[in-house]
Amino acid sequence: MKEDKIITIVGLGVVGGSYAIALSKKGYTVYGVNRSAEGLDMALSCGAIKEGAHTPEKFFEQSDMIIIALYPDQIVEYLKKYGKYIKKGCLVSDVAGIKSHFVDEIYAVMPKDSEFLCCHPMAGREKRGFKYADDRVLQGANFLIAKTESTTVEAIERMTKLVKSIGFGEVRVTDVATHDKVIAYTSQLPHAIAVSLINSDDEDSETASFIGDSYRDLTRIANINEDLWSELFLGNKDNLVSTISSFERQLSVLKSAIENDDADTLKKLFIKSTARRVNLEKKK
Amino acid sequence: MKEDKIITIVGLGVVGGSYAIALSKKGYTVYGVNRSAEGLDMALSCGAIKEGAHTPEKFFEQSDMIIIALYPDQIVEYLKKYGKYIKKGCLVSDVAGIKSHFVDEIYAVMPKDSEFLCCHPMAGREKRGFKYADDRVLQGANFLIAKTESTTVEAIERMTKLVKSIGFGEVRVTDVATHDKVIAYTSQLPHAIAVSLINSDDEDSETASFIGDSYRDLTRIANINEDLWSELFLGNKDNLVSTISSFERQLSVLKSAIENDDADTLKKLFIKSTARRVNLEKKK
Repeated sequence: MKEDKIITIVGLGVVGGSYAIALSKKGYTVYGVNRSAEGLDMALSCGAIKEGAHTPEKFFEQSDMIIIALYPDQIVEYLKKYGKYIKKGCLVSDVAGIKSHFVDEIYAVMPKDSEFLCCHPMAGREKRGFKYADDRVLQGANFLIAKTESTTVEAIERMTKLVKSIGFGEVRVTDVATHDKVIAYTSQLPHAIAVSLINSDDEDSETASFIGDSYRDLTRIANINEDLWSELFLGNKDNLVSTISSFERQLSVLKSAIENDDADTLKKLFIKSTARRVNLEKKK
Repeated sequence: MKEDKIITIVGLGVVGGSYAIALSKKGYTVYGVNRSAEGLDMALSCGAIKEGAHTPEKFFEQSDMIIIALYPDQIVEYLKKYGKYIKKGCLVSDVAGIKSHFVDEIYAVMPKDSEFLCCHPMAGREKRGFKYADDRVLQGANFLIAKTESTTVEAIERMTKLVKSIGFGEVRVTDVATHDKVIAYTSQLPHAIAVSLINSDDEDSETASFIGDSYRDLTRIANINEDLWSELFLGNKDNLVSTISSFERQLSVLKSAIENDDADTLKKLFIKSTARRVNLEKKK
């Protein structure tokens, strides 16, 4: 297998920055590309990158791997502009939460002698920017690879080796369509719920004194990057609407049981949810 | 103010047990009443109680305070049966998550020379039984007192002193109706959502490989005690149905925005939820 030593991270936000920190600690040569000088300076001064720049030409020419940690809608344009500088045999990857929306366009603009692999690290934070980057969030996190018909076994193996070396947990290979369908449920629906839960509070209620860990846990991700997440939601529209609808049906069953004083149905729902949650922990 | 030294805990489950551990550590004389011998043995052997029994007569006769940590529907019957053993001037309390449902009945059966104070420690765990009791869950937790027209200032002061001494955070005094209304939103709705979220999963989907912290956080409380929570839900039916309905309306606004590719509305919803979540943390 090809030895990947030189890696360029495009976008030193919270995800790209966390990768940079983790990779540098493991001895990879990491170059960083970032729009703002502030992010570059911080990454340089803490040793997360060896060198940084606002555009990627000189780094792309040397890199064995490129990780584009930009918003989903920016990836295609970026590759159109800078794809020609990518070294032969380079493995190019992303960190986006959705794939179907742009994967064909990406493949269309990629240089023929390098490969693009759709990747989704299941590790994020509510905050934005390099100053919140932290390699600890990657430790043990699930890592998803969404393959297409043209994905090579070698690309999967190279990426798996890389992300295992920096601490990711399970690496799961799936196809692009399944990725987007399941992610609508496991990641986007929870965000839609958290936002709706906190937004349904009475404006004048003094909720803060009345909360326990459950409310805190369920609203943590209501602190959400509006630009990124509106893109992610609209880019996975059909899957997300469908998963919101099944959730609404479940909640409606529960609500009817309450309205009808139907303790038996409530208990059955709770027993089912408990079994599923216990089962989830076992698989962790 | 009356000095409360001898305290009886009825029900050494996860909440009653946590109280017993915390109170004993602080030097109170704690007696425990529990149905099962197992819970009593465990509480005795770890020093959480000084003495234990299956019925409370001899402890009630000596106690300055009694904390009834039973299921809400059991409290009235318990007081009917054992109220006559309660010492004059004793402050009797509960830990139930709802209040309106039974508060009048409780007041009706309480002996006239002692007082009942509705209390709700906002600290729970998914597990059941004394073996999961842990005084650390009480540290910094919100504590709610739901007063009625007959609640005395002295009772509130005695309880506040007690729970502050074992590490609770904010003690918030409210009235019974407000308690049940706000709790429907901050505690019961999150449980209804968590249950419905995990129950809306496709049976055959391999969700576990696709989850991140958000799904884990939002489903933690889907592991739920079906007997207790069906009581809590049905005992606060009108408030809960109303709060589920406002949540449903919020989710529906978000879903429509997705269906209509309305990025502006999505962003507005996200900006609002983020501001609310940040605000919540500030008040913590």
